[in-house]
Amino acid sequence: MSITAVNVRNQFRGTVVEVIEGPVVSEVDVRLPSGQLITSVITTRSVKDLALAPGREVVALVKSTEVSIATL
Amino acid sequence: MSITAVNVRNQFRGTVVEVIEGPVVSEVDVRLPSGQLITSVITTRSVKDLALAPGREVVALVKSTEVSIATL
Amino acid sequence: MSITAVNVRNQFRGTVVEVIEGPVVSEVDVRLPSGQLITSVITTRSVKDLALAPGREVVALVKSTEVSIATL
Amino acid sequence: MSITAVNVRNQFRGTVVEVIEGPVVSEVDVRLPSGQLITSVITTRSVKDLALAPGREVVALVKSTEVSIATL
Amino acid sequence: MSITAVNVRNQFRGTVVEVIEGPVVSEVDVRLPSGQLITSVITTRSVKDLALAPGREVVALVKSTEVSIATL
Amino acid sequence: MSITAVNVRNQFRGTVVEVIEGPVVSEVDVRLPSGQLITSVITTRSVKDLALAPGREVVALVKSTEVSIATL
Repeated sequence: MSITAVNVRNQFRGTVVEVIEGPVVSEVDVRLPSGQLITSVITTRSVKDLALAPGREVVALVKSTEVSIATL
Repeated sequence: MSITAVNVRNQFRGTVVEVIEGPVVSEVDVRLPSGQLITSVITTRSVKDLALAPGREVVALVKSTEVSIATL
Repeated sequence: MSITAVNVRNQFRGTVVEVIEGPVVSEVDVRLPSGQLITSVITTRSVKDLALAPGREVVALVKSTEVSIATL
Repeated sequence: MSITAVNVRNQFRGTVVEVIEGPVVSEVDVRLPSGQLITSVITTRSVKDLALAPGREVVALVKSTEVSIATL
Repeated sequence: MSITAVNVRNQFRGTVVEVIEGPVVSEVDVRLPSGQLITSVITTRSVKDLALAPGREVVALVKSTEVSIATL
Repeated sequence: MSITAVNVRNQFRGTVVEVIEGPVVSEVDVRLPSGQLITSVITTRSVKDLALAPGREVVALVKSTEVSIATL
């Protein structure tokens, strides 16, 4: 199913650089064009359904209510 | 209190560009050096405690389990 | 941007039945074909960007790590 | 301890159809009366405390702020 | 509906000390027996459904995957 | 990087009493001075980066929007 994403501001296009697969959940590390890494933990079922592997172009998405703000 | 952040990978340093204040929660929009915007929704109480306003340098943080992955 | 959703299992197609708009976030109530209601709280910015209003067909999505399980 | 749930709208009664147990977290798949599946990831400790297994009737709960909305 | 809670470890019994009501979401502040305050943001609809007000005894619940850990 | 925390109300100082390590995520159990236990699930990568182990003093943090309220 193709859907239109909720909020383009919190979408980060990048490239999968590593997948650490566990029995239930997996860590997917995505490198953004700026060089920053985003770490995501999703079900291993989704990793397989989406055929995620290093080199794959993906979008990392975050809901606004999940973003915290801290000061330096 | 000063703390050491959990996971440097999911920290995004940037500059507050807009604060939309509501009675309970506020939207804080942060521009990253790459130009990308991150939208955060936090309590208005925190906005005041942290004195957030346009121009302020902040860190937007996201827990790995909150990051979804989609393909294009 | 059109994306392929992460996990079809946690997608609920339904119809918007009510939108309660606030200055920062809004409540969007979605009725599923089974009659069940799902309540979502998203930014009012997203409500406007997606032109959400009663009668609109949408998909409510939830990340697996956000779903709790209780027994009766 | 018996508690009254926060918001009946985001409660989904269903039957556990599969439990994939990991060392720390487990995937619990719940089938709703409408046929739809909900996937939950909770601690394996909770799976054992609640004695979750296929056939068990449960309630899947989601907080409103965790529900995203997308359009088709 | 009465349900059995998922994980007794992340349940905090306390007393509501303040409710800041907004049009969509409200802040509910709960004081624990230890004196510590927990701030919760839930829908104003839930605040009304549960008749939350200062003095009310409640349980604040958090899913394990939502708890971050930092060092000092 | 040292940061100032978002909301002191939802910070719980305590001592790590157990770490259950998995291949991707780990459970970290923290005992508060009041005796209450908080269970956290974070990436095993973070457990190693922060050198978490029993006896370590930590802060468990929760975002206000992740806290649910129930009545007894």
